[in-house]
Amino acid sequence: MARPLRVGIAGLGTVGAAVIQILARQNAVIAQRGGRPVQVVAVSARDRTKDRGFDLSPFTWFDDPIALARSPEVDCVVELVGGSEGSAREVVETALSHGKHVVTANKALLAKHGSALARTAEEKGVTLAFEASVAGGIPVVKTLREALPGNSVSRLYGILNGTCNYILSRMELEGLTFAECLKDAQRLGYAEADPTFDVEGFDTAHKLAILTSLAFGSQIDSEAIYVEGISSIAPLDLAMAQELGFRIKLLGVAERTNTGIEQRVHPTMVPRTSSIAQVMGVTNAVTIDADAVKELTLIGPGAGGAATASAVVADIADVASGAAGAPFGRPVHSLESAPRAPMQRHEGGYYIRLTVHDRPGVAAGVATRMAEADISLESILQKRSETAATKDPHGRSGTPVPLVLITYAAAESAIRSALEEISGDGLIAEPPQVIRIERE
Amino acid sequence: MARPLRVGIAGLGTVGAAVIQILARQNAVIAQRGGRPVQVVAVSARDRTKDRGFDLSPFTWFDDPIALARSPEVDCVVELVGGSEGSAREVVETALSHGKHVVTANKALLAKHGSALARTAEEKGVTLAFEASVAGGIPVVKTLREALPGNSVSRLYGILNGTCNYILSRMELEGLTFAECLKDAQRLGYAEADPTFDVEGFDTAHKLAILTSLAFGSQIDSEAIYVEGISSIAPLDLAMAQELGFRIKLLGVAERTNTGIEQRVHPTMVPRTSSIAQVMGVTNAVTIDADAVKELTLIGPGAGGAATASAVVADIADVASGAAGAPFGRPVHSLESAPRAPMQRHEGGYYIRLTVHDRPGVAAGVATRMAEADISLESILQKRSETAATKDPHGRSGTPVPLVLITYAAAESAIRSALEEISGDGLIAEPPQVIRIERE
Repeated sequence: MARPLRVGIAGLGTVGAAVIQILARQNAVIAQRGGRPVQVVAVSARDRTKDRGFDLSPFTWFDDPIALARSPEVDCVVELVGGSEGSAREVVETALSHGKHVVTANKALLAKHGSALARTAEEKGVTLAFEASVAGGIPVVKTLREALPGNSVSRLYGILNGTCNYILSRMELEGLTFAECLKDAQRLGYAEADPTFDVEGFDTAHKLAILTSLAFGSQIDSEAIYVEGISSIAPLDLAMAQELGFRIKLLGVAERTNTGIEQRVHPTMVPRTSSIAQVMGVTNAVTIDADAVKELTLIGPGAGGAATASAVVADIADVASGAAGAPFGRPVHSLESAPRAPMQRHEGGYYIRLTVHDRPGVAAGVATRMAEADISLESILQKRSETAATKDPHGRSGTPVPLVLITYAAAESAIRSALEEISGDGLIAEPPQVIRIERE
Repeated sequence: MARPLRVGIAGLGTVGAAVIQILARQNAVIAQRGGRPVQVVAVSARDRTKDRGFDLSPFTWFDDPIALARSPEVDCVVELVGGSEGSAREVVETALSHGKHVVTANKALLAKHGSALARTAEEKGVTLAFEASVAGGIPVVKTLREALPGNSVSRLYGILNGTCNYILSRMELEGLTFAECLKDAQRLGYAEADPTFDVEGFDTAHKLAILTSLAFGSQIDSEAIYVEGISSIAPLDLAMAQELGFRIKLLGVAERTNTGIEQRVHPTMVPRTSSIAQVMGVTNAVTIDADAVKELTLIGPGAGGAATASAVVADIADVASGAAGAPFGRPVHSLESAPRAPMQRHEGGYYIRLTVHDRPGVAAGVATRMAEADISLESILQKRSETAATKDPHGRSGTPVPLVLITYAAAESAIRSALEEISGDGLIAEPPQVIRIERE
């Protein structure tokens, strides 16, 4: 049997520890598959003395992960340090420029420097593999890179952040507020102390940037992504979604439009009967629309030590067998610099929840402004307050009440300008809630 | 750029024609990805004169597909002839023994001769690729072979036959009988004139045999599969399933048990909230339970020319890039000869619908026999006929009525013997309906 692939692991958190354990457990299978064994030879972490539940003595210890990345005894560096700059970036750049393969779970690094790193890997004839950077244990990178060469992808969308899906699921099932569910998510370890990165959609955006590049053969362009989080979603929106046959999910969506490539992250109304609507809790899912396969959906664990390690180990096994190809499935120079489709040009259905003054002519006034902006309404639902203290003879309370509109496909810019008119008319008591609809 | 991969296609039905069209359309992408172009150089089919919507003149025509498989101008033979014997088998054996790569969509051939063919491929140092043989456009072969080396799979189950899922979906949604839905499926081209192969579960069994081998690293053993079709499913079973929180799907299930590897194809009650329960119509789905990723579900088109061709083209692209590995993910000699877990030893929950005589003591008699066989009942539902012409003072009509039992996990052998006792007691008017329950 050929000589082993010698692996160095930088970062020994839950994922790093799980990688070491899985490689030990699955060693025979991986060796059979790749024609050579995989051997962890070196590790690096911040604290050497921490009890990780296994013996570190078989591995060369590096206090400095950059030194590990340079070490001549390592063929393949596994970067699990995290972060788009600092040591993580230096570890990956050093390893690649020293002609070593790199396997990473670092979405932030890829989203920011993916194209440049892929170019270095290509120049050095080594692999840069990153299955674990998106959707944990779901093999979506492999699927986009290797399973669909016969397809032109038109759209992909996914639930890429387990924290947000957990919060939205609980809000829906238990009628709780965002703040209540966030607190629970933090208590259970599903959300960070500072949850901004997750709940405001930035984590989803990093992952989407990577998937977009793989799906469309384009340069990574994370700055082009329109990002909106879930913190403004109210229990009333989830209740209305249910009534209207939808569920609300934080989706990352990438779509080829007439204008270019549209990338957006926002709370989204999806049909309750769609595959993606069934995905509850911390689970992730990605749906790919492509010309030959039509619709393909992958559902699985988006995070967690073992699931993420499963993806890292799959990449290591591909490196060992020599099956790992170009990082983005094609030479870096051939990645398209696709024009950005701006959000203002987005076209789709919209859920609009207005809080209107409960007096005659308001619904008519709203409907008129929508018609003037050439927006067709699929439905309009007015909810009267049941508990209002005083009502006039027409049942009106004078207090603000929700008015919900579902539009047919309309341009984002038209929606925005109609809402400005409606606001200028003094018809609404609060800023409007706007949630985009994504159909199968 | 390296010299092209020269492809010969045996069989020009809808899939073969779609392969040629997709290769033409995606040629640049595939060449970039694999570092070499793919060129169809030869074709073979029964009828040369048939109008296929494209020009055959660029390709060398072979009346005899075996001659194509031998042709020195071909590097990779795509076998789309079909059938486990005859020309399909001869094409594949000839191509492999002449040192040519083979890509096939032929599940029957693989299920019967997969291990032997893989051995020939290995001896000749060529690829035998068969993504298209299971679940059409879903990359489940690639996922099992390449994405899960860090996992030990405990179970996989899937909806692998679109015809059956279409029939069961329509029966459920429209309250129709099996015979009515089958007729519609035939009219729409989803079912053959002789539907036995699909509706009695044999097609699912072929596909399951292939997935089992990939999932467990075992020799293909299609003869070990217990097979039961959907023709006995009654509208009442679907109605009861709904009432009890289940859906009925024809599943192929492979599971590692204490006894060995259990392979079975049968109508199955799955929880209505599971991912697989959402899959309606001709769509296919596979769920993989494994130690690191826990649960992974892939959903997509199980058939159709373009979707199947997408899988064929992915295999061709892997051959072109040199990324295609061992057919079953490891050397043939290392595939385990796993002991067969016999169906009598199967343990799980059961739905049992008895048609009992409507007289005192019947439910008690049934429950006693179940208890004697050590079977615990989760629920017992007796449906009284509403329309019976005559009823005694206790509301009993004397005509047979359904009695439905849901059991906790029990052994198949215990269920079978309890039902024999119940039948011997003269409590039931018709043979019992037994549907196994599969939990997430």
